Amino acid sequence: MSPAPHRIQLGHGSGGRLTHELIRDLFARRLRNPILDPLGDAALLPEPGGRLAMTTDSFVVSPLFFPGGDIGQLAVHGTVNDLAVSGARPTYLSLAVILEEGLPMETLERVVGSLAGAAREAGVGIVTGDTKVVERGKGDGIFINTTGVGVLREGFPRSDRAPRTGDALLASGTVGDHGAVVLASRSEVELAGGLVSDCAPVTDLVEALFEAGVVPLFMRDPTRGGLAGVACDVAEQLGLGLDLEEDAIPVHPDVMTLCDLVGVDPLHLACEGRVVALCAAEEAERALSAWRALPAGRSAARIGALVADHAGRVTLATRYGGARRLVRPTAEQLPRIC
Amino acid sequence: MSPAPHRIQLGHGSGGRLTHELIRDLFARRLRNPILDPLGDAALLPEPGGRLAMTTDSFVVSPLFFPGGDIGQLAVHGTVNDLAVSGARPTYLSLAVILEEGLPMETLERVVGSLAGAAREAGVGIVTGDTKVVERGKGDGIFINTTGVGVLREGFPRSDRAPRTGDALLASGTVGDHGAVVLASRSEVELAGGLVSDCAPVTDLVEALFEAGVVPLFMRDPTRGGLAGVACDVAEQLGLGLDLEEDAIPVHPDVMTLCDLVGVDPLHLACEGRVVALCAAEEAERALSAWRALPAGRSAARIGALVADHAGRVTLATRYGGARRLVRPTAEQLPRIC
Repeated sequence: MSPAPHRIQLGHGSGGRLTHELIRDLFARRLRNPILDPLGDAALLPEPGGRLAMTTDSFVVSPLFFPGGDIGQLAVHGTVNDLAVSGARPTYLSLAVILEEGLPMETLERVVGSLAGAAREAGVGIVTGDTKVVERGKGDGIFINTTGVGVLREGFPRSDRAPRTGDALLASGTVGDHGAVVLASRSEVELAGGLVSDCAPVTDLVEALFEAGVVPLFMRDPTRGGLAGVACDVAEQLGLGLDLEEDAIPVHPDVMTLCDLVGVDPLHLACEGRVVALCAAEEAERALSAWRALPAGRSAARIGALVADHAGRVTLATRYGGARRLVRPTAEQLPRIC
Repeated sequence: MSPAPHRIQLGHGSGGRLTHELIRDLFARRLRNPILDPLGDAALLPEPGGRLAMTTDSFVVSPLFFPGGDIGQLAVHGTVNDLAVSGARPTYLSLAVILEEGLPMETLERVVGSLAGAAREAGVGIVTGDTKVVERGKGDGIFINTTGVGVLREGFPRSDRAPRTGDALLASGTVGDHGAVVLASRSEVELAGGLVSDCAPVTDLVEALFEAGVVPLFMRDPTRGGLAGVACDVAEQLGLGLDLEEDAIPVHPDVMTLCDLVGVDPLHLACEGRVVALCAAEEAERALSAWRALPAGRSAARIGALVADHAGRVTLATRYGGARRLVRPTAEQLPRIC
């Protein structure tokens, strides 16, 4: 037996001995659970006992490690969160990695450790996987895909009541933290306030709403495209106008500073642990109380409402008393944010 | 409105306007089905009515197009086949692409067309997706991840009867065609016999076994690592010896020629449309007849049997009357075969 190599080689993706050993000694060992352990061609899952939600995301974030998280945590939270805001309880994830030849084994070990920890925290099992290797210069360290399935709650999405004028839009916390942290890491800007990524599972935030008896009319996590992207989706998909109040939108002071410095709109920056939910006006306070009782929901706020005017469009009432139309980011401000 | 760009830009992965348009005008249009169409954060699936199988695979094949197939077909077949040999009826796939900045839009359109055609052929719906873009030189044209779920057949995997000495190992067709075609494409070797990749869904081959009343004791598709890899898995996982007969293993003459030319073992080359199944000796002829009745199973053959000797190891009886131990490929012979 030769000792395990210190860097990823092309052979680790060949399906031969090196692949076999990498899976056995790293992935299977760190991620172990009774469904993954047989390492078959497919994971065999119990009958779910309900309708399913399924979602997929690839993660190509650069740098791989940033204040408050890394690509491994992001890969679990991103997919878990898409399931949670779809009204499902996340249960199983698949994990597929594309490694670049020459990646230090130590880096991979650290990322797999993060994946394992995040899966434990979110209460999901990583049940099946795949490993590929590309030549040096044909990838960038590590790309990760996770695909998740979860069981849908009864009664969500709602069919009993359509969204209407007056419904309130709520945000569970400050927006743009993750995007700002990655941007700062890349540009080597030092942030004075110790800002970290908001990267976290939102399962507790979603659960808290349902436990408080609030069934949202629409729920999303504002990742790529930021709050602006989700707001545009709300207006377009519902065919109603949406008014946001700039003053009401929680933004961390560090994010504000960075945005002023580099000329980016905080509403275009990605979050990785926030929920945006639409609910009936009379339920808004109950929803906010439920969120504020959680550490992750301390800064929760009512940020806007559906209106009869300008159907399909979003208007932002600025802090200076003006109003402007809010649009999706058009160009690439922040490539590889997740 | 500016016209759609001719090449992939970083903005296509930003979650902004370009991403939105790429998804709407290409992916959603070509792959459309009632579950994908709402384009939510997650696909909402009906209750499956049984146990599930789940599997994931990333595809990084180079070149993207090869005789008999391309990365799009491969990405559907690879995942469908992992579900089929696990005893499941493939139902839903997720699709996640990592595009390299500068990829011609025409190439992407061709690949998405292939994905759509292959999904139709295999009877699966692509129900959710993700698009990321990395900078020029940080990827290689297009990488694809598909993750699939399917509903498991009752009674498989078998719990009524363990594999035992005398059980027969069957191959549904010639081995190594896909690996040889990709190798030839890359080395610009011209093959005289018009060899094409065996890339295809194996769902009909698997269905034919069950319809013939044969419930395999073990089933796999010999992709990376080839027949040798699967044979080693059989012996190791069952803790029994496995004897293969070189003369009985169907190999296309072109594959043989290429292997002689470049010094590769055809048993190490990947297949992308073959099944290897273990069944009771008395069921072997019935299984082979069922396969041979299908165009894809014309060359099906009994290639070996479980033996009492050399537990956990595979022996190949060579065509010259000798015997050698068969091992997994140790080094990287063929990077990026799928």
